[in-house]
Amino acid sequence: MIFEVIVNVSLKEAVLDPAGQSTGKILHNMGFGVENVRIGKQIKMNLNAENMNEAKENARQMAEKLLANPVLETYDIVVKEL
Amino acid sequence: MIFEVIVNVSLKEAVLDPAGQSTGKILHNMGFGVENVRIGKQIKMNLNAENMNEAKENARQMAEKLLANPVLETYDIVVKEL
Repeated sequence: MIFEVIVNVSLKEAVLDPAGQSTGKILHNMGFGVENVRIGKQIKMNLNAENMNEAKENARQMAEKLLANPVLETYDIVVKEL
Repeated sequence: MIFEVIVNVSLKEAVLDPAGQSTGKILHNMGFGVENVRIGKQIKMNLNAENMNEAKENARQMAEKLLANPVLETYDIVVKEL
């Protein structure tokens, strides 16, 4: 079975995000009332797995081992059957 | 009112994603059955707006004017009241 896996990786609250701060300043200057802008990654892929449980477990392992840095980042996972 | 705005920016299908391809190769070597790995951005912020409609319209304008490059990228927007 083929699943669509989305892993959203974001910096932990305590970690500075200079790119986000800079983007926030620009948006402010453009007249938007924004605060606390944070820029993360969104990794999308197709995954071959036996069932939904295996797909979710594979996604978790990929996030832990490669896609996120657990010291600096948190992640959440969305898995959909295609 | 304060809203949480999430703008997911991803490369259009036709645009090459070398970082995604490289990540896909590594995941494959690690034993995961993945295909078509694509890496995009996820921008989160708090937004001050009068109501949900204004918040959505502001988010659309921010995406069009700054956060996404309409030639290469597509985006979707999620707005939640906080």
